[in-house]
This record gives sequence, C-alpha cells and structure tokens, in this order.
Amino acid sequence: MIEREIHASHGSSRIIIGGSLKNLQELLTSPLNVVITDETVKSHYGVVFSDLPTIAIGQGEKIKNLDTVKRIYREFLKLEIDRSSQIIGIGGGIVCDVSGFAASTYLRGLTFGFVPTTLLAQVDASIGGKNGVNFQDYKNIIGVFRQPRFVLCDPEVLGTLPEKELQCGIAEIIKHALIKDSSLFKLLEREWNALLSLDKPSVEKIVSESIRIKAEVVQADALEAGERRKLNFGHTLGHAIEKEYRLPHGEAVSIGMVMAAKISESMGLLKGKDTELIINLLSKFGLPTQLPSEAGPLMKAVKKDKKREGEKIHFVLLTEIGNAKVIKISYPKLEELIHDLCMHR
Amino acid sequence: MIEREIHASHGSSRIIIGGSLKNLQELLTSPLNVVITDETVKSHYGVVFSDLPTIAIGQGEKIKNLDTVKRIYREFLKLEIDRSSQIIGIGGGIVCDVSGFAASTYLRGLTFGFVPTTLLAQVDASIGGKNGVNFQDYKNIIGVFRQPRFVLCDPEVLGTLPEKELQCGIAEIIKHALIKDSSLFKLLEREWNALLSLDKPSVEKIVSESIRIKAEVVQADALEAGERRKLNFGHTLGHAIEKEYRLPHGEAVSIGMVMAAKISESMGLLKGKDTELIINLLSKFGLPTQLPSEAGPLMKAVKKDKKREGEKIHFVLLTEIGNAKVIKISYPKLEELIHDLCMHR
Repeated sequence: MIEREIHASHGSSRIIIGGSLKNLQELLTSPLNVVITDETVKSHYGVVFSDLPTIAIGQGEKIKNLDTVKRIYREFLKLEIDRSSQIIGIGGGIVCDVSGFAASTYLRGLTFGFVPTTLLAQVDASIGGKNGVNFQDYKNIIGVFRQPRFVLCDPEVLGTLPEKELQCGIAEIIKHALIKDSSLFKLLEREWNALLSLDKPSVEKIVSESIRIKAEVVQADALEAGERRKLNFGHTLGHAIEKEYRLPHGEAVSIGMVMAAKISESMGLLKGKDTELIINLLSKFGLPTQLPSEAGPLMKAVKKDKKREGEKIHFVLLTEIGNAKVIKISYPKLEELIHDLCMHR
Repeated sequence: MIEREIHASHGSSRIIIGGSLKNLQELLTSPLNVVITDETVKSHYGVVFSDLPTIAIGQGEKIKNLDTVKRIYREFLKLEIDRSSQIIGIGGGIVCDVSGFAASTYLRGLTFGFVPTTLLAQVDASIGGKNGVNFQDYKNIIGVFRQPRFVLCDPEVLGTLPEKELQCGIAEIIKHALIKDSSLFKLLEREWNALLSLDKPSVEKIVSESIRIKAEVVQADALEAGERRKLNFGHTLGHAIEKEYRLPHGEAVSIGMVMAAKISESMGLLKGKDTELIINLLSKFGLPTQLPSEAGPLMKAVKKDKKREGEKIHFVLLTEIGNAKVIKISYPKLEELIHDLCMHR
C-alpha cells in the first residue's frame, strides 16, 4: 500500500493506493456517512457498504447534469445531512464528479471522499479536486475546485471492469507519462502486458506513478492557471472527437494525443521517432491512433471548446516524451493545423 | 472613501466604502465584464452600466433558486463567457447571493465583484464570501464559500431604498455591534436619527464599522467552524420567524435578537438592563421586538434549521453588549427556553 498527500490551495487530499474497499470502515469518521454510487457498482460491491445510507444515481454521461444533482440534494434533505456529515462517492468518473459537486455545494461544502472503481477514475477523475456536471452540450462547464478528504484506490475492483473501461484509464496514464515522465513511459513499454492482465504489483506501481504525476501538477497549480493546463494534453481535440464521433473517452483522447503529437512534430518541436513510439505504445493497449472518418466534424467542434480564453486557445504540445509545452494559438490557426494533418495522413 | 481588505482561505476581497457606482469603470479589468442585476436596480441605475452586457433576474426570495441560476448559465453560454471574464452583481442580497453562486460554479469559478445597492447587502450579504440559493423550503442550503474580488459600497444608492429595506440593514448593523463592539452600539444610540435620514458621513462611518466587524469575524473563521457562528446571533430564531410569520428579514432578526438576549438573561449570562438597551435601540429604528402572535409556529420551524449538527444546535447568546458566546444546546432544550420565554412575556 502506498499513501500520498495532495496539498492544494482549496484543500488537502489523502490518496491510498493499493488499499481495500473492505477497509472503508476506517475512513468513516463522521457521525453520518452517506454513499453515492451507481447501480452497477452497487450490484458488485454493495455488500461492503450495505449498512450506510446509499444514493444510487443512473449511469452514463447523460445523467451527469443538474437534475441528478437536484435529486441528490433532495436525498440529502431526507437523510437530514448536516455539516458534520461525510459523502463518499463510490464509482467511476461520473459518480466522483457528480458526488463531489453535490457535496461541495450543499450547506456550502460537506466533507467528501472517493472510492474510484475504474482505472480512469483512480488515476484521473478522483485526483485533483475538479468536480462538476455537464450543462446543455458542454462538458463539465458547471463545477468547482475542491479536494476530496480521501481517495481510496483498490486494485481488486478493476477486475470487474470491461476492457473498454480499462483502456480509458490507460490512455490517461500514457498522457501523464507523455507530459511529465519518460520513465513511466518506459515502464509502460515494458509492463504493458502485465497491466492489461491486471497483475497486482504492476497495477499498483503504475497507478501510483500516474497519481504522483497528476498530484505534482495539481499541487503546483491547483486552479489551472498554468502548469495544470498540461493535463489537457490530447483533450482539447479529444473532447471534440469524443462528442462528434461518439467514441469512448479513452479512445478519443488516444486519437487526440496522436494528433497533438503530430502537430508538435509539424511545428518542429517533437521528433518523428517519438510520435512513432507513442503510436506503438497506444496500439499495444488496443487504443486507436487516428480518426475513424473525415475531419470536418472535429474542426467544427473545436470552436466550442469550453476552455477558450478570448479569441485564443491554450493548446498542449510535446517537445519530447516526458515534456510538454503550452502554447496559445488562435482558432483559425488550430483549424489550419488539423486540416494540414488530415491532408497528409 | 474608506478601503478595507478581507483575506480569507478561499480568496481576498477589496471593500470600497463611500465609493461611487459612477466609478465602476475602474473595476472593469477583464476583457468581458457582465452585469447581473434586477429590474428595479436597472431602472434606477442602468444608465451607469448600459454599455455592459446585462442579465436582469426577477425579484423576491422566490426567484433565489436553481432555476434562476440555470437561466444565468444559459446567458453566460450565449455571451461566450470564458475564464478571463468577470461577473458584477449589482443589487440587493438576492442579486449578490445568486450572482456569486452562478459565478463560483461556472467554469469552476469566475472572478466576480459586487455593487450592493441595499444597506443590508452592503453590511452583510456582499461581505464574507457566502453565496447560494434556496432549495425546496430551505434558505441558502445550496451554495459555496468564495470571496468577491471587490465590493463597492456607494452611500448614494441607499436614497432610493424603501424604509423597510433600510431597517433590514440596520438590524444587521445592530447585530454586529451586539456581538463584537459596544462602541458601535453607542454610536448607533447617538446617531440613529442621522442614519435614518441617510446623513452621508454617518452612513459611511456606521457602514464602515459594521463591515470592519464582519470582516474581522470572517477572516478569523472564513468557513464558519467557530467564531463566524457568532454572526448567526438572532438568526437561528430569526430565519424561523421570517418564514413562519412572513415578516421581512430585518424585522424577524430584530425579534430573534431580542429573544436571544432574553434567553441569555434567563441563563444568567446577560443583565436585564442590557436587554432593555437593546430593545430601546431597535425600537428607535422602528424595528419590532416581539413576535406578532403565539410562539407555536416558531417552535415547529426551529427543528428544521439548516445549521443543525447531529442532535444539537449552535446557539448564539450575549454576555454583554459587544460580546457573544456560542453554546451547543439540544432542540428540546431550545424549545423549552422559547416556551418559557413566551409564557413570561
């Protein structure tokens, strides 16, 4: 078991990697502890928290909205939750994002913790204090920054994940390696098979390193004014690809990272050999490395990205494997780069 | 003009007392500045901000809800607001609370500032970083802590206030004096007439002292874990009275303060002479000092107070004018105290 602490301006988090859901009891320090989860997680692990009041929300991106948050508020009222209560989100990224937001906005902020049950949630959604919901067509546009009190990562629970879900997490782990740590990249090249077969020491080591990188970035820049933007590597295009081509998040980010690497290459920042290594590693995990069809829908969608600032966009490029650079480019310029890329693929 | 800074764990605020709405321009430092206000304020002062995009929300407690917040989010989307934008709430407490919450939860937190146009908002709602909306029957149950970048208090705008509105602010000023500062209490005893007739030097001095007290309390305890609870003096009962007897907030708090003073007296903490001085001062401003009818509805409502913690409630008492003390008492005990009080009045 490995423990890490994240200290950010908006709170501190204790991350327990290689812990067990079965030991959740030790973290239930409040007079009233309430679980938010979804039906699938409840059917797999509900027995572990059957003695806690449990709110099960629906599943899928479509329920990640203010209506679900209002449903949770109503349940909070019924349970007579007060400021001494603690909320525990047990589930994937959607459960973490929604429960973190509901907890952060109820009575001006309740204590909350997470037990992320997907690899993606363990290395990404549960770490860093971002939470929120979608509004109209915009992903995560409503939310706040607030750290969970604890994040309990249990490698055992990954065993019930569908392969596509596992891939989603792997895409984020590769992203962390690409922007910050070439040794994690090499570790993934060596142990990709062990990770895919959920070999416990491999999972623990790789999840821990991935969380370390995210934690370092978050601590340096909790409110996303600079360094944290690097975590958007592959995501500016990835989010647009996810929506326009209806791909799973991990697959979309995988394609987005390859495109961003190629754009880095075309700007003379990254060597072609590095792009090849990236494509090779993604392929080992069965992740796609190019758009499934023509680039038109992507270009339209890029304009709507929620992180635009005035007329320009922060775009994350690579200078080598393990090193990222944020540039500000205009929308027309980004469209031009995507266009050139797709003409030459 | 007097300037104060508030530094709290969740941000810093610059308070400008005796400034002029006409100089708002100097505070518009963002590429896009958007005003949130209500129709009455817009009709009085809209000419000052006619060149800024303006979102007018409805009026009254009934619009202080998540539907109004959603309406604001939709307007934000239309205006293509991004993280560099600034929101300016111009209005009373409802405008400040709603616009602060919308700004705090959009794109995980936009910069915002306030121009409070009521005395109550100048000395209370705009100061301290609390924001939020009502949900179902519960006041302010949804919200976050976040400091406005600036608060611009213009004494001129108080001239268009109805007398009832002025009284609301005066009740909070008296509260600040009672919990923290006997010299402000004496100032109010001397200058009550000047305040009521909006004599500018008096208003500026009294507003400034009142804000100083609130700022000190907030700085000491931004997240309401201890000291800040003193600001609830008169409010535990006040909120219940407001709802059950349909009284304006200021009148309800006035009655709540007298009841809390009498409870302090019955517990041997406060001298009867002090209670008399408090009743005298409130009466000078035309504020009520006893329940308009029997106490039954109040006792029922007390049980629902949103700040309950487990089985006990934090209740604020006085030990003298200028000194408060927070105790934890059970609901049955509080009901008993109210009951005794009403039997002996």
